[in-house]
Amino acid sequence: MTAAVLYEILQLAGILAFAISGALVGVRRGLDILGVIVVGSFTGVGGGILRDMLLGVHPPVSFTHWPNLAVAVAGSLAVFFVHPGITRIRYFEVVFDAFGLGLFTANGAAIAFASGQTPLTAILVGTITAIGGGVIRDVLVNTVPGVLTRELYAVSAILGAGIAVGVVALGGSETLATVIGGACAIVLRLASRKLGWHLPKPRMRETPATGA
Amino acid sequence: MTAAVLYEILQLAGILAFAISGALVGVRRGLDILGVIVVGSFTGVGGGILRDMLLGVHPPVSFTHWPNLAVAVAGSLAVFFVHPGITRIRYFEVVFDAFGLGLFTANGAAIAFASGQTPLTAILVGTITAIGGGVIRDVLVNTVPGVLTRELYAVSAILGAGIAVGVVALGGSETLATVIGGACAIVLRLASRKLGWHLPKPRMRETPATGA
Amino acid sequence: MTAAVLYEILQLAGILAFAISGALVGVRRGLDILGVIVVGSFTGVGGGILRDMLLGVHPPVSFTHWPNLAVAVAGSLAVFFVHPGITRIRYFEVVFDAFGLGLFTANGAAIAFASGQTPLTAILVGTITAIGGGVIRDVLVNTVPGVLTRELYAVSAILGAGIAVGVVALGGSETLATVIGGACAIVLRLASRKLGWHLPKPRMRETPATGA
Repeated sequence: MTAAVLYEILQLAGILAFAISGALVGVRRGLDILGVIVVGSFTGVGGGILRDMLLGVHPPVSFTHWPNLAVAVAGSLAVFFVHPGITRIRYFEVVFDAFGLGLFTANGAAIAFASGQTPLTAILVGTITAIGGGVIRDVLVNTVPGVLTRELYAVSAILGAGIAVGVVALGGSETLATVIGGACAIVLRLASRKLGWHLPKPRMRETPATGA
Repeated sequence: MTAAVLYEILQLAGILAFAISGALVGVRRGLDILGVIVVGSFTGVGGGILRDMLLGVHPPVSFTHWPNLAVAVAGSLAVFFVHPGITRIRYFEVVFDAFGLGLFTANGAAIAFASGQTPLTAILVGTITAIGGGVIRDVLVNTVPGVLTRELYAVSAILGAGIAVGVVALGGSETLATVIGGACAIVLRLASRKLGWHLPKPRMRETPATGA
Repeated sequence: MTAAVLYEILQLAGILAFAISGALVGVRRGLDILGVIVVGSFTGVGGGILRDMLLGVHPPVSFTHWPNLAVAVAGSLAVFFVHPGITRIRYFEVVFDAFGLGLFTANGAAIAFASGQTPLTAILVGTITAIGGGVIRDVLVNTVPGVLTRELYAVSAILGAGIAVGVVALGGSETLATVIGGACAIVLRLASRKLGWHLPKPRMRETPATGA
C-alpha cells in the first residue's frame, strides 16, 4: 500500500467517524432517513468545508472529490439501518466523535504546517477543522456544542494538532503526523471521559457582596 | 422582456420568497421591526452569500448588487405591517419557504453547471444555496432547521437542482432551467406537506437487548 | 504614540471587549475554564474571521497576527478568575458587548470604505463584522442572538458604520472614523437599553378574522 493510499484512507476514516457520530445524533432525535443523511453528511464534511473556506480553497474539496461525500452518506445510511438501542447510543456518539476529532485535528494541522503556515496558524487550522464538524452537528440539532461542555475536548484537539506539527517539524510525513497526533488526541479525549477528568469551573458567588 | 431581465426577476423572486418566510417567523416570535428586518434579510440573501463564500466570489454579490438587499428589506417590512393572524402564519411560512427553496436550488445548480462545474458539484452548490438561507433563519431563532424535520425538504432541493442541471445539459438556458427545476421542487415540497408524505424514520428499540 | 499604534490598540480593544462579553456568558453558563476560553475567543475574533471570509482574505488575519488571539485568550482567562457575582454579570455582558459592537462596526466600515468599496458595501461589512461575533457567541450557547432581541442593536451598528464611512469620506483617518463612529454606536446602544427604547413590535391578532 502506497503512502498516498494510506493517507486517503486516514482522511476518509475521519469523515466516516464524524458522519457516524452525526447520524447517531439524528437517529436519537427521531429524524427521518434524509434528515439522518443530512446531519451525518454535514458533520462528516462540514469541518473540511469550513477549513477550505478559511484557507481560500474554492470550491471546497468535498464538493469536487466525490469519495468524501460518498463515505459520509454511506456511513449515515448504515447508521440509519444498524444502530445501538437508545440506552447505548450516546456512548457510541462520543466514541466516533473522538475518532473524528483526533484524525481531523492532526491531519489539518499537518497539512497546513507542511504547506508553509506557521505553527500557530497550523494548530488553529487543525483545531477548527476538527471542532467545526461537531459544532455544525450540535447547532443543527439545537444543542450547546460539545466543545463547550465535554471533558478536555478542545484540549485534546489542540494537543493532537500540536503533536502533529511537531512530527512534521521533525521530518515525519503528514501520514505519520496524522497517526501519532490523532492517536494522542483520541486517547486523551476518551480517557478524560472515562476517568471524569474536568477542568476547573468558575466559582460563582450566588449571593454577591453589596454593590459587587 | 429580455432574457436578462427575466433572469434577474427570478433571482429576486427567490430572495423575496425567503425574506418573507424569515420575516414571518420573526413576526411570530414577536421581534421588533428591526429584528424582523434582520432575520428576513439574512434569510433572503444568506444562502447566496454562503454560495459565494464557497465558490470564492469576494465580496458576495449581495454586498455589491443593491437590489438583492433592497428586495429582502422591502419584503420584510411589508410582512411587518401586513401579515396573517397567528393561526395562519405558519402556513404562509411554509409556502414562501418552498418558493425560495425551489428557485434557489434550481438557479444555483444551473449557474454552477453552466460555469463548468461537474454535475455533482453543481447539485451540491444549488442544494446548499437553497438550504442555507433556511438554516440561517432557523438557527437565528433557535429552532432545529426545517431541512432536518420537514417532509421531503432536502429531497425536493436535490431533485430541483438535478433537473436544472439536466435542462442546461440538454441545451436549455439558465432561465429555463430555473423555471423548470424550481417548479418541480416547489410542487414536490408542497405536495409532500399537503399529503403528509414522509420518509421512513429509524426504528428505536426503547428496551434494547442485553449488551446491545 | 503613532497613528499605527493607536489603530492597533483600537482593534485589540474591540476584540478584548467582545472576548470579555463572551467569557462572561460562559461563566454564567457554568462552562469549565477551556469552555470559557473557547466561547470568549470565538466571540472576540469570530466577527473578524467572518469579515475576512466574506472579503476573501486567506487565511483570516486572526490566524496569522498572534496578538488578536492572545488578547482574546487573556481577556477570557481574566474573566474566568475575576468576574462579578451572578446578579450583576448580565449587566457587564451587555456593556462589554456594546463596546465590541461599536468598535467593530466603525472600524470594519472605515477599512472597507477606505479600501475602495462603495458606502453600501462598507456599511454591510462593518455591520456584519460587529454583529458576527455576538451571533457566534449566542448560537454557541444556544440562545436567540441579541441582534434580534436587544434594544436598537442593529440600528446602533448601522449608525456607527454609516458615521465612520462619513468621517472617511470627509477626509478623516480610519482611526478617527473608528473613534467617532464607535462612540456614537456605543452611546446609542447603551442609552437605548438604559432608557428602554424599543422599536415597534408587530401587532398580532390572536383571534384572526375568519379566513384571514
